[in-house]
Amino acid sequence: MTATGTDPLRPLRGVVPPLCTPLTETGDVDTAGLRALVGHVLSAGVHGVFALGSSGETAFLTDAQRHTALTTVVEAVGGRVPVLAGVVDMTTPRVLEHARAAVAAGADALVATAPFYAATHPMEIADHFRRVRDGAGGAPLFAYDIPSAVHTKLPAATVLALAEEGTLAGLKDSSGADGPMRRLLTELRRRGLDSSFAVLTGSELAVDGALLAGAHGVVPGLGNVDPHGYVRLHAHAVAGRWREAAAEQDRLAQLFAIVDAGADSTPMGPSSSALGAFKTALRLRGVIGCAATAPPQVPLDDTAVAVVRQRLAAAGLLR
Amino acid sequence: MTATGTDPLRPLRGVVPPLCTPLTETGDVDTAGLRALVGHVLSAGVHGVFALGSSGETAFLTDAQRHTALTTVVEAVGGRVPVLAGVVDMTTPRVLEHARAAVAAGADALVATAPFYAATHPMEIADHFRRVRDGAGGAPLFAYDIPSAVHTKLPAATVLALAEEGTLAGLKDSSGADGPMRRLLTELRRRGLDSSFAVLTGSELAVDGALLAGAHGVVPGLGNVDPHGYVRLHAHAVAGRWREAAAEQDRLAQLFAIVDAGADSTPMGPSSSALGAFKTALRLRGVIGCAATAPPQVPLDDTAVAVVRQRLAAAGLLR
Amino acid sequence: MTATGTDPLRPLRGVVPPLCTPLTETGDVDTAGLRALVGHVLSAGVHGVFALGSSGETAFLTDAQRHTALTTVVEAVGGRVPVLAGVVDMTTPRVLEHARAAVAAGADALVATAPFYAATHPMEIADHFRRVRDGAGGAPLFAYDIPSAVHTKLPAATVLALAEEGTLAGLKDSSGADGPMRRLLTELRRRGLDSSFAVLTGSELAVDGALLAGAHGVVPGLGNVDPHGYVRLHAHAVAGRWREAAAEQDRLAQLFAIVDAGADSTPMGPSSSALGAFKTALRLRGVIGCAATAPPQVPLDDTAVAVVRQRLAAAGLLR
Amino acid sequence: MTATGTDPLRPLRGVVPPLCTPLTETGDVDTAGLRALVGHVLSAGVHGVFALGSSGETAFLTDAQRHTALTTVVEAVGGRVPVLAGVVDMTTPRVLEHARAAVAAGADALVATAPFYAATHPMEIADHFRRVRDGAGGAPLFAYDIPSAVHTKLPAATVLALAEEGTLAGLKDSSGADGPMRRLLTELRRRGLDSSFAVLTGSELAVDGALLAGAHGVVPGLGNVDPHGYVRLHAHAVAGRWREAAAEQDRLAQLFAIVDAGADSTPMGPSSSALGAFKTALRLRGVIGCAATAPPQVPLDDTAVAVVRQRLAAAGLLR
Repeated sequence: MTATGTDPLRPLRGVVPPLCTPLTETGDVDTAGLRALVGHVLSAGVHGVFALGSSGETAFLTDAQRHTALTTVVEAVGGRVPVLAGVVDMTTPRVLEHARAAVAAGADALVATAPFYAATHPMEIADHFRRVRDGAGGAPLFAYDIPSAVHTKLPAATVLALAEEGTLAGLKDSSGADGPMRRLLTELRRRGLDSSFAVLTGSELAVDGALLAGAHGVVPGLGNVDPHGYVRLHAHAVAGRWREAAAEQDRLAQLFAIVDAGADSTPMGPSSSALGAFKTALRLRGVIGCAATAPPQVPLDDTAVAVVRQRLAAAGLLR
Repeated sequence: MTATGTDPLRPLRGVVPPLCTPLTETGDVDTAGLRALVGHVLSAGVHGVFALGSSGETAFLTDAQRHTALTTVVEAVGGRVPVLAGVVDMTTPRVLEHARAAVAAGADALVATAPFYAATHPMEIADHFRRVRDGAGGAPLFAYDIPSAVHTKLPAATVLALAEEGTLAGLKDSSGADGPMRRLLTELRRRGLDSSFAVLTGSELAVDGALLAGAHGVVPGLGNVDPHGYVRLHAHAVAGRWREAAAEQDRLAQLFAIVDAGADSTPMGPSSSALGAFKTALRLRGVIGCAATAPPQVPLDDTAVAVVRQRLAAAGLLR
Repeated sequence: MTATGTDPLRPLRGVVPPLCTPLTETGDVDTAGLRALVGHVLSAGVHGVFALGSSGETAFLTDAQRHTALTTVVEAVGGRVPVLAGVVDMTTPRVLEHARAAVAAGADALVATAPFYAATHPMEIADHFRRVRDGAGGAPLFAYDIPSAVHTKLPAATVLALAEEGTLAGLKDSSGADGPMRRLLTELRRRGLDSSFAVLTGSELAVDGALLAGAHGVVPGLGNVDPHGYVRLHAHAVAGRWREAAAEQDRLAQLFAIVDAGADSTPMGPSSSALGAFKTALRLRGVIGCAATAPPQVPLDDTAVAVVRQRLAAAGLLR
Repeated sequence: MTATGTDPLRPLRGVVPPLCTPLTETGDVDTAGLRALVGHVLSAGVHGVFALGSSGETAFLTDAQRHTALTTVVEAVGGRVPVLAGVVDMTTPRVLEHARAAVAAGADALVATAPFYAATHPMEIADHFRRVRDGAGGAPLFAYDIPSAVHTKLPAATVLALAEEGTLAGLKDSSGADGPMRRLLTELRRRGLDSSFAVLTGSELAVDGALLAGAHGVVPGLGNVDPHGYVRLHAHAVAGRWREAAAEQDRLAQLFAIVDAGADSTPMGPSSSALGAFKTALRLRGVIGCAATAPPQVPLDDTAVAVVRQRLAAAGLLR
């Protein structure tokens, strides 16, 4: 991204979809599909994209696939909006390798979780983010708070300290916990940090409330499927049209039910069911050509695909 | 409560504080303090009260103390608003005893959690609510979703089924999870159940967003301390003044920091710290005379009390 | 229990079954069945009994039922072995009421968990046990470490401090965690406390290893069904016949598979499945007349009953 | 490892230390230290070694460091005992890359966990192990059950199915749950699978009981520090000297307290404290030259080092 005038990353605002990573039937990154997906969300007017997040199956991609996906996204975006890149791995040394690779590939900012697999102390978590920031050439760094994946909730005191010292440029809050986010937002404002530190909610079902509470933006997995909806929702909120924002959110919450279609029909985990639904919806909408997810995820069966199709139609997303 | 005209429980709407249970230094229920607390919240214009909830130290009260507390509340309220009564215990037979006692004491509605201590299946949880409803003479029954205490999240499908069949009159959602609540609200509306089934959020820090999402009301522990604030917040929301609602919520979120004062100063659990802060604030505001909590909870020390005083002053709540 | 000569509680050793509480079809305590169960386990030579534990459905019994069950057990035992009584409830004031009732009913010792429902700090947990011990007239008190039910693991430092000061007479360790128990046992011996403080494992599938590690005894739920097996296992261990002890444990581990029969056949929780299997086995062995469990537990269906019968036969427990 | 006559991997038996990975002050793999560590454990008579496990800081090593560590171990062992290699990563495609690299580096067998970070269904977990086995050229594959790290407990039914079909050569059980392991062992014997499938306990504090229960071996982190102790313990067990085995285990359980020295002295996570203690002990014993652990782990301070030294002396491990 070429900075022109004001820096869109200080703070980052708006709708930033965590891009799915389309795969071919043989398990390779479907670069054509990924470029089409980038075009799909950019045409809706999103304010940034997040590659290699949980919705991007980052946990399932090899390092080579991560590289392919990220460079494809950077090229397809062409500097029009910031590209955030997930650098998800177990601990600092491994995260640092991903961070350096992402910067080299052209990412505008990095997104790292707390360490996982190994149990860490909050002081170690803070040190982790400092080392990642320092070791990756100073690229803006976002903390990714996702307890469902890493089994640690980032302590508010840690986030505030890292915000105040400038280690972090923001937080992607995928904890789904509304209370701690509100306390963080009010405290950031009290300290005058809300103009340099962005809070992006990953709760795609409560975006209206999050924006009302002062969150800077949203990183909605469902924004792959319906980026126009989230852009409208955001615009309503910015303009103070809260009833309209809530109505748009309600429509998106109904559409979100596609994430259960897979597991309602076949034994599978929540990742298979949710990411399979997003990709199936993108295929049915004609954005990508193949809805395959990476192993050991299970594909949606015909019954589940029919449910996804029906809900897309109900949401007015199929021609 | 004497029903006059429309039924305020179908569905219950508005601000319903989960009343603290003031105790004397010797550990008895401070009935004078409890009556004063009821007067305090009623004078603010709350729409109901919830006795014997987690904020009311229900887990710490003996059956005799529960009886004293509930009859005191029922008498002090005098039918002006509905009185909900917690019937918190491990399993169906024990909950049923509390339920019958609460109905006999004059409660207008009951609030029960899923079973705890013993591990149960969703089908057993549903059966539990049906038995409590049937065994307590048909008093309106609210499900109390509080995973932090009972270590089970009520499944949405269970809640919807119990709403549809009329077993439940509503849900007190203290899960702090915004996504599942939004999905529940949109599905209740889709099925036409939102006019008979109330969703009350227990997330006292995201009430603006919850009301925007269509929640019927709020059960805020902090509403003991500042009921006027929550009543104003609710009125703003009902009138569509969302920016003003958010500003009021922000003020309350800052005040909420009193819950950390105790634990920041002395080793104690979150229950000691939060309930001790609420009671200390009520004492400093002159509502009750003694801030004691039940054993084995630890009292706030002088440093913590000073912090509570300071935050009350900052919120404009000390004369 | 009348103490004659040496005190069997300092420390308690041997096999102490956590007695099931037989119920009638209408949900009352089946006192005849309970007396028969006491006779069944005493005839096998057990060294104590534990009434009102998790296997005794303590979480499902009303206070009146707890009283009936405990007095029935005390009378049926008639002082031949110590009677331990569970005093399971959420916090100190409620536990104290059960403790006083249990002492009045003739219990020789009490068994209390850490507080649950409300979150507590280790210092509060320690204070809890001290208050229960002091408030119940000095009856010997055992700590009941059962994280699966109370969602707290008793910290080793807390247990050691309470052992050293004499607050606790022992520990029933139902955590299933072999490492922490071994560290506790070696530390108790190092401090010379193993002759006054009993460690009883609740892990009915690793009794041979626990006794080899120096545990004083075992509280096996399966000991309701096959008390003779556990008495033989204990006798082998005391005599140093470790291979024979292991062989007996292996036989009991195979029999233990009855706990899955219910859930393999019908949707139900683990409590329904395990306690239903124990009671069904007792009925099939002719000890009790009715295998009913308390609501909302689900009964075993015919398929599950057939599995229990088959495994009892394979274990040589059906004539 | 050169197979001569019988295959030591069918099933693997005995003491298999999960090797620490010594690091230099600058964070590189200390290959001289690692060779010395291999010599240390081989001279004690261990029956295999496990490189790149949790004790080997596998979560903290980059791919290049993993390669260096594994090739160093393979060369140092020189075929005298089997070398197991951890292939720890989030999901199948990433694990497969490590698996192929480990086979190429000369590992005799692979050790993989269930997927983590992404939530998976038991059917997906089974598919994961099948794909890793098939994709890595048929090298013997062990499942690594470590819920504390991956937040999933391997279901017994899954392990049994994978054992029966030959996908797995064994299980490293680091769950610390004695009951499920006993049930697995008895069921493996009932099906005649215990001569082809190895159960290795990772519970270094209950090895006597595990071997008495029929476990094939042990993978003790503390075996880096005192391999001779574990080899003696194993020999006692094989010879039926159970009291002597227990006494040796008790001594090792006392020594194990070194893992708390770090965290008792400085704020740090359990990984820092345990691995720092193992490495400090190895340095004090003269096996390695530097006790550094990988970032963001915190080093032991002087107080903690003194505690480790004292406990080593008490265990007779310092000259």
